[in-house]
Amino acid sequence: MKNLADLGERAAIRCIREILTKGTNSKGIGDDCATIDLGKEYLLVTTDMMYQRTHIPVQMTPYQMGWFLVASNLSDIAAKGGTPLGLVLSFGFPKKISVQFFKELIKGADACAVSFDTTIVGGDTKETQEITLCGTAFGTVKKDEFMSRTGAQPGDVVAVTGTLGKAGAGYYALKRHYSEKKLFKAFLEPVPKLKEGRLLAKQHSVRSSIDISDGLSASLYELHEINNVGFEIQQSALPLASELCLLVAKNHDIDPYSLALHFGGDYELLVTVSAEAIEKTQKTLRKHGVDLRVIGTVTKKKNIVLLDGANKRILENKGYEHFKKHRF
Amino acid sequence: MKNLADLGERAAIRCIREILTKGTNSKGIGDDCATIDLGKEYLLVTTDMMYQRTHIPVQMTPYQMGWFLVASNLSDIAAKGGTPLGLVLSFGFPKKISVQFFKELIKGADACAVSFDTTIVGGDTKETQEITLCGTAFGTVKKDEFMSRTGAQPGDVVAVTGTLGKAGAGYYALKRHYSEKKLFKAFLEPVPKLKEGRLLAKQHSVRSSIDISDGLSASLYELHEINNVGFEIQQSALPLASELCLLVAKNHDIDPYSLALHFGGDYELLVTVSAEAIEKTQKTLRKHGVDLRVIGTVTKKKNIVLLDGANKRILENKGYEHFKKHRF
Repeated sequence: MKNLADLGERAAIRCIREILTKGTNSKGIGDDCATIDLGKEYLLVTTDMMYQRTHIPVQMTPYQMGWFLVASNLSDIAAKGGTPLGLVLSFGFPKKISVQFFKELIKGADACAVSFDTTIVGGDTKETQEITLCGTAFGTVKKDEFMSRTGAQPGDVVAVTGTLGKAGAGYYALKRHYSEKKLFKAFLEPVPKLKEGRLLAKQHSVRSSIDISDGLSASLYELHEINNVGFEIQQSALPLASELCLLVAKNHDIDPYSLALHFGGDYELLVTVSAEAIEKTQKTLRKHGVDLRVIGTVTKKKNIVLLDGANKRILENKGYEHFKKHRF
Repeated sequence: MKNLADLGERAAIRCIREILTKGTNSKGIGDDCATIDLGKEYLLVTTDMMYQRTHIPVQMTPYQMGWFLVASNLSDIAAKGGTPLGLVLSFGFPKKISVQFFKELIKGADACAVSFDTTIVGGDTKETQEITLCGTAFGTVKKDEFMSRTGAQPGDVVAVTGTLGKAGAGYYALKRHYSEKKLFKAFLEPVPKLKEGRLLAKQHSVRSSIDISDGLSASLYELHEINNVGFEIQQSALPLASELCLLVAKNHDIDPYSLALHFGGDYELLVTVSAEAIEKTQKTLRKHGVDLRVIGTVTKKKNIVLLDGANKRILENKGYEHFKKHRF
């Protein structure tokens, strides 16, 4: 008898998609958020589960766990151009959890929600063996501002918000017991790019959008598969995070590009934008203090090529499994 | 250092309520569903987590687990008079889970959603040590049809849909290895009362409403606390389930009233209705094949009294913990 591990992640998700009945009011599964037709708007819904042993770094404080749970869900709303309406949270806690721990977790979740002008409107707690945190965020977006994963066209420009490798740098900094907090803050308390998502959505120039919490390479492969297109990515154009540069200064054995390309946990948005609109889009975002960096182009050829000066190689698809969402 | 077990369930929920910032678009926490103001309607959102060791009976098939997860979430939408828009599900599965198990679970979840004219629109899977299932259902209800937990008034009539003790009977039937499927079907594949909830909501006569999945007594105590009222419940008026009668015929040591009053898992609706409107409400529901049984009255006196012929005693508040939702 085959088990889930034999089946593999992709086949498992294909299997779910085949079984589920498609609704008439939904775009179907496979985007950062589920969408429900509300007339002029879409209701956006996303859910994410974190489990102590496999998804929560041991150095994470309870406050940060709460923050992280909310931030990772809000990031999916951001990637679709949405405005959050609220969140519901389900917690599974072992009985031995201290009241202090529990309170700090709720405070962290509340602080993140409030920071992004939204609130936790309800939830559920259960007794479990290991800490299990499940968040669901919901929001709305005007239909003509919805940024789908589907829509990338050859000739589009590929761009990312913010910087890459923050989370990877934080992970290694913690692993090596560095004490500089600024090295791992972005890893443990990520910032969902809601402002950036709204700004992008209002430009009407984004053809496809995805959050890169699974890693840049994994997200590019996701867009490649959905849109049946390829990419040419310029390695030198990748906006490396200052955290990453600091880490590399301390550890010459670390390849910053590998972390920037493959490590999950950077809650930035990856978009493809029509070539004629990219300059105006960048200019408008810059006015609001948002950096949108062009890192490549969408190609007809169906592979993902990394250009490093004169070198050209196929980009590997290696997301870090412990961060990867197996979304359906 | 105090831990969660010392704190107790009620104090833990009070603690969550104190920490969370209240949003301006939400009615706040403490109802079957969270509500978000959408203008003419409320968006209803509810979430529920099931965990193998503590919440899933060993006899439950994977198909039934999927069904149960969806049904328990839809029941909360039903209790508020809502129409479901969809669900998102988060699964935590151990690697050793068979593909067959996984497929059956998805089929069960899909079948339940489709049975109640809704769909599963997305989700997330993670690798966990024990099976963890987290569902979130969302729906809408017109503001003037929303049935809150708040609003019960002395003089109101207390009524329940359907029958009581089905789940309790199923639990005991399984425990004693009885083979009659009809004894435990309602326990393992509960039916969310969405049709009943809509019918009730349209009457505009319901003053407060709650689902009794935590048990009738626990739900009465919940309404008592929120509304600062008491209840007089007529034991002889309780609509005992046929499953319960069958069980008692086999086991004379089982007290059917105790199961009907205290055992969780009956996904019926408990409502208080204005006394002048109860007859019309019952009549209208009966036309649609729905039985709404009057079981008592709301009192000014703040205790919950059970009348058994000439006997009068305070109703105990004992929900079965393994079913109880610790909702915030």
